[in-house]
Amino acid sequence: MLREITQADFELFWPTFQSVIKAQETYAFDPTMSIEDAYQLWCVTPTKTFVYEDDGQILGSYYIKPNAMGPGNHVCNCGYMVADAARGKGVARQMCEHSQDIAVRLGFEAMQFNAVVATNEVAVKLWQKLGFVIIGTLPKAYRHGTLGYVDSYIMHKQLRTQ
Amino acid sequence: MLREITQADFELFWPTFQSVIKAQETYAFDPTMSIEDAYQLWCVTPTKTFVYEDDGQILGSYYIKPNAMGPGNHVCNCGYMVADAARGKGVARQMCEHSQDIAVRLGFEAMQFNAVVATNEVAVKLWQKLGFVIIGTLPKAYRHGTLGYVDSYIMHKQLRTQ
Repeated sequence: MLREITQADFELFWPTFQSVIKAQETYAFDPTMSIEDAYQLWCVTPTKTFVYEDDGQILGSYYIKPNAMGPGNHVCNCGYMVADAARGKGVARQMCEHSQDIAVRLGFEAMQFNAVVATNEVAVKLWQKLGFVIIGTLPKAYRHGTLGYVDSYIMHKQLRTQ
Repeated sequence: MLREITQADFELFWPTFQSVIKAQETYAFDPTMSIEDAYQLWCVTPTKTFVYEDDGQILGSYYIKPNAMGPGNHVCNCGYMVADAARGKGVARQMCEHSQDIAVRLGFEAMQFNAVVATNEVAVKLWQKLGFVIIGTLPKAYRHGTLGYVDSYIMHKQLRTQ
């Protein structure tokens, strides 16, 4: 079930969040950030944040926010995280589809991912399957935990025509 | 002369800042933002902010900050603004060249502009002259004050090899 996050949910989700940022394979977040800073970043700054809950377990979470202000605030940005135990079960796909519905309901017209790490092939392929297009490659924009400098992709999907 | 900004400088620069954001032709900033929010955004959040001062007049200003956190914090982002009265005098060029020197001194390895409005041809051409490359086009990502929806470019320059 996808529903809006609570602070208690985030505390349950924190081990997943921490393992994702410590791995330094997907997110450009400070790997040593505190739970307070993470909560601010993931749950307070965004417009909305959701969890994917299954039988009391938090299997995933995503946020949605404007990608820019003023004349750029019709494009949104989302970030998704899935618990290790829930990989391969379609949680990311369901969250991304949900986020596109929410985006349209919030009035956004397009969705942009600013830095999809090129070596994160599972994510790149899933976003492509869901209609996102790589519109640019940022050369060596990410210092991968085990692979060193790798490229990042900017991915984009128009949700509504203007 | 380029030097670090003070709060008094920003107050002198505010009419330029306000005219730039109200025009809605170049920046994805809220056109109605207060001077307090603008000061926070332009002078507090960034790593450093500079002014171009000439005989007590503030002709331009720019900020520099990391474009991402953690494993992405070797790429910086800058924003530049020039006073109307100082256009065509090379102020933007001098600020961009200065910012590249500062970037390297701060340890950044590349510089990225996330949304150069495509119709801002003077800026696009200047950044290209200074070695920046358009690495992607964001379709209709900016609602231009007079032209409606226009594209934005992501521009990038490698400052040091890794």
